[in-house]
Amino acid sequence: VHVKMLAAPINPADINMIQGTYAILSPLPAVGGNEGVGEVLEVGSRVAALKPGDWVIPATSGLGTWRTQGVFPERMLLKVPSDIPVLCAATLSVNPCTAYRMLADFETLAPGDSIIQNAANSGVGQAVIQIAKASGIKTINVVRDRPDLPKLVERLMALGADHVVTEEMLRKPEMKDIFKSIPKPRLALNCVGGKSTTEMLRHLQPKGTMVTYGGMAKQPVMVPVSAFIFRDVRLRGFWITQWRKDHEQGELGVSFPTQPIL
Amino acid sequence: VHVKMLAAPINPADINMIQGTYAILSPLPAVGGNEGVGEVLEVGSRVAALKPGDWVIPATSGLGTWRTQGVFPERMLLKVPSDIPVLCAATLSVNPCTAYRMLADFETLAPGDSIIQNAANSGVGQAVIQIAKASGIKTINVVRDRPDLPKLVERLMALGADHVVTEEMLRKPEMKDIFKSIPKPRLALNCVGGKSTTEMLRHLQPKGTMVTYGGMAKQPVMVPVSAFIFRDVRLRGFWITQWRKDHEQGELGVSFPTQPIL
Repeated sequence: VHVKMLAAPINPADINMIQGTYAILSPLPAVGGNEGVGEVLEVGSRVAALKPGDWVIPATSGLGTWRTQGVFPERMLLKVPSDIPVLCAATLSVNPCTAYRMLADFETLAPGDSIIQNAANSGVGQAVIQIAKASGIKTINVVRDRPDLPKLVERLMALGADHVVTEEMLRKPEMKDIFKSIPKPRLALNCVGGKSTTEMLRHLQPKGTMVTYGGMAKQPVMVPVSAFIFRDVRLRGFWITQWRKDHEQGELGVSFPTQPIL
Repeated sequence: VHVKMLAAPINPADINMIQGTYAILSPLPAVGGNEGVGEVLEVGSRVAALKPGDWVIPATSGLGTWRTQGVFPERMLLKVPSDIPVLCAATLSVNPCTAYRMLADFETLAPGDSIIQNAANSGVGQAVIQIAKASGIKTINVVRDRPDLPKLVERLMALGADHVVTEEMLRKPEMKDIFKSIPKPRLALNCVGGKSTTEMLRHLQPKGTMVTYGGMAKQPVMVPVSAFIFRDVRLRGFWITQWRKDHEQGELGVSFPTQPIL
């Protein structure tokens, strides 16, 4: 399949892959970029499901999307609708899928339940807010303090966030006010590590799950022993690349917009 | 039920309870001690399953076993065989039960599988070694270095330990030799916290589970983010007191010696 790339983002994991600190490394010479959208220009005679004009995204990691054109086997591509914004299509295969799977696979959440996440303004974080909102799940979103905080809060609230708090606020008694109107979270999504994670964990319900999918602080996850013993919190990890290896193509949950969310 | 105490141990959790650092605190004035064995002296007219001469252990935490005699409701006592050594009976309700449940409830272990544990010479650790040995599970036992290390190693090997290593050895390439003869552990049991835990975690199989049941190092559990994301390790906690609350009396797994082990 001959593909013309239309757009491709730069994700932190792409950089880690180039630095050699990621768990998968492409054989050299390699093209960077694991996500993006392209338009099919022409197809070989044995290509069944794709035709010129179709939009495609990578079916797996390591496709090398930072290029203008490429020829790929059909099995490495997934067809997506071509009537969605190009930037949405270009950022569809990693972050929204990660958000969707983390909301679906670790705790059985019902409308009215709540989740808490840090790095809430990341690509995954924004997808979590939107998917949760569409599913009736309340979100508590943790971001770093910054000069233009009110703007960021406004933007995340417009996406559907229920509460936006800074990491400093996580430690304050005012957090109790939030839990007057919504239940304590059953699920915490961690993309940071270090102190941020420890503080977030304090608000998790007993027997709740924290899923780690990133470590932007470059610090380990630190958990007080008492959280394990007396509150029975469960810690897991998620990596969309591994999920893809473990599941058949087509299960990603990206066949939206017709599929029910959770 | 009027009971004469025969023997009662001092466990770290008893001390924590007196210090006020434990998750459960008895109303004052209180008698210390959560474990022990007593002999029934006399019973009230509505006591159905106990008679004078029976041996009993506490059915729940907080009985206050550090006393010579006491009168307790029948539901707070469990009958045990009176033909086992008194020191075994006195230490039956906390540590061996914790060991048994941790081996049974988190991973499905088959003969030939392996587990790794730190604080291997603790009460729980010794019970883990014996239950695992009786079930065909291989054990890798981590202990702190000490002047009389060879004696300790010999004692744990005599109990059924397959491998005994110091915390320093956990970091050394010689660990590879162990995994020539036995598989990497699917289950890690952590009673320490801090660095000991991080090092032990490195040897866990992908998708394996580490269960924390104590924190003797008084340091948090520290986990590299990569262990969650790339190796999918799962972290849980265990507390026998909570397990008892969640389950009916009689399920403890202490109806040995007739019950199969796992």
